Amino acid sequence: MSLDTLQAELIPLIESNLQAHLETQDFGNSQALRNMMTYHMGWEDEIGSGKRIRPLLTLLLALAFGAKLESAMPGAVAIEYLHNFTLVHDDIEDQSPLRHGRQTLWRIWGIPQAINAGDALFCLAQLAILNLEQTSGERIALKASRRFNQVCFKLTQGQYLDIAFEGNQDISLETYLEMIKGKTGALIAFSAELGGLIAGKEVIVLNLLRDYGLSLGIAFQVMDDILGIWGDPAVTGKSSASDILAKKKTLPVIYGLEHCPEFKSLWKENNLSPKRVAELADILNSCGAQDYAKQIAQKETQKAFQNLKQLFPENHEHSIYQKTIFELSERLLARQW
Amino acid sequence: MSLDTLQAELIPLIESNLQAHLETQDFGNSQALRNMMTYHMGWEDEIGSGKRIRPLLTLLLALAFGAKLESAMPGAVAIEYLHNFTLVHDDIEDQSPLRHGRQTLWRIWGIPQAINAGDALFCLAQLAILNLEQTSGERIALKASRRFNQVCFKLTQGQYLDIAFEGNQDISLETYLEMIKGKTGALIAFSAELGGLIAGKEVIVLNLLRDYGLSLGIAFQVMDDILGIWGDPAVTGKSSASDILAKKKTLPVIYGLEHCPEFKSLWKENNLSPKRVAELADILNSCGAQDYAKQIAQKETQKAFQNLKQLFPENHEHSIYQKTIFELSERLLARQW
Repeated sequence: MSLDTLQAELIPLIESNLQAHLETQDFGNSQALRNMMTYHMGWEDEIGSGKRIRPLLTLLLALAFGAKLESAMPGAVAIEYLHNFTLVHDDIEDQSPLRHGRQTLWRIWGIPQAINAGDALFCLAQLAILNLEQTSGERIALKASRRFNQVCFKLTQGQYLDIAFEGNQDISLETYLEMIKGKTGALIAFSAELGGLIAGKEVIVLNLLRDYGLSLGIAFQVMDDILGIWGDPAVTGKSSASDILAKKKTLPVIYGLEHCPEFKSLWKENNLSPKRVAELADILNSCGAQDYAKQIAQKETQKAFQNLKQLFPENHEHSIYQKTIFELSERLLARQW
Repeated sequence: MSLDTLQAELIPLIESNLQAHLETQDFGNSQALRNMMTYHMGWEDEIGSGKRIRPLLTLLLALAFGAKLESAMPGAVAIEYLHNFTLVHDDIEDQSPLRHGRQTLWRIWGIPQAINAGDALFCLAQLAILNLEQTSGERIALKASRRFNQVCFKLTQGQYLDIAFEGNQDISLETYLEMIKGKTGALIAFSAELGGLIAGKEVIVLNLLRDYGLSLGIAFQVMDDILGIWGDPAVTGKSSASDILAKKKTLPVIYGLEHCPEFKSLWKENNLSPKRVAELADILNSCGAQDYAKQIAQKETQKAFQNLKQLFPENHEHSIYQKTIFELSERLLARQW
């Protein structure tokens, strides 16, 4: 079975379990709160829903370690609700008007209701992780719930740094990397760890899974940063060098501010014209910002695969699940997802 | 031992355990996030901290049912962090500039950082409730954590209604009461329930505790609504009829909008003068709004004490903890707290 086949089977299952979890909640007189949540989750139209990469990773790893799909599902549901809680609050915090080409929650219902709907998604995530009690027993449910909340706390630290950056001209590359470790990195690391945790694996394996996920997450984010400046608009679906246009301080930009005086002086300009945006992308490239970012992405990619090989040392062709995890990692890192 | 003596002993213990819980977290490069949390919790000056009524209720009930203080403490810590998480987000959602005479978190650090600091407090609450594992075992920790998150979800429903009210002229008294059930009511109900849950009490007792806490919470909130309009400024520390000045739609106001045409037409005015505010308070009183609110408060107070007597049917003079719970309830309802 290939990743494509498995994915075609698992994604609809993830989706139906996400929906079922929401359906079990009684909304009483607060049906509009329910509507906000289903809108954000993408269940009101054809184009909305996310790629569900994180829960897929949790499920594949749990399966690779011999756990049953039903045992792992509450964890997958929890991870995806947690991810979406962070998206709803991030969109408010970053004042993002759009996500996946649709209006963000706060743009439609206002900031107060969007903060509250985010909190409600967080509660759903918490209730989902506790449902591991029924599928995996008390000990695993408690352990997973504790790790889950340690990770949530870590995410707020990453987010603190992210917000603080917006008002700060002088961010070091080191601080930026710490921030993405605390955001994308921490959540993908936990998605991986949770798969092992549900399968009852020992600490040494859980640590390897976390390291694998952390590197995967960092590499994924840095690739995203590269594509945000030099990606092909036909592929990314965004305007050319959209991150420069939006003045986002991503890894290449921070590199440029540190190492490229010409870029630094032009970056100060407001209301960049499309021509100037293209110029800035070129200058940044000439300064070596793209090469630098690619180096980081490659280093983390290597680390991710090293960890994966330690986790699954045998010829992984023999286990369909192990094989698909390698495949999934490759696709994510090539950003063909 | 009187309530005063016990309180003088327990409140500092609650405070030190709240602080210790924060101190065990590693903030790395996010020290400012830590500062936001300690500021909100009131640990940076003399006047800041709240009354810690909810954790006190949890502790007293757990003790009254024979649990050890150390066993109940993680629950008390969780309740207080949860309460403070809701305050931080509520202050943003209501655009409140002040709390306990101090600037609110969002006024100092901005909305994005305040949303995130609220999320971090929520994570701390979650980690605290899970700490019941060490003091009360796996089964109780899981049960408490599940109930905790069901209540959190209920709180977001109450908050949804509260925000929705702001933009809505026509709220029925019934809907308003449902909203306060979902907010103040639900959290005080859980503070009481948690005390019994930690002491390992059976479902019938837990339900009585919940009913007791719910009535206590509703009566407490309605008394607050009455004081917000007719309270003595020398006692409340607020300006005269401050809730009318702030145009807050509390129970007496909703009664007035439904039953008092004169009040309804004057309420539409903007920028009320102090003289007009006083007039509105008088009109509302003549219409019977204060009597109506007092009736509700009295009905719920009676229900609360009936439940309490069912919970502790013996002569409660014999148990100091049981006695103090009656005392605490009386003081809360007389708003001498």
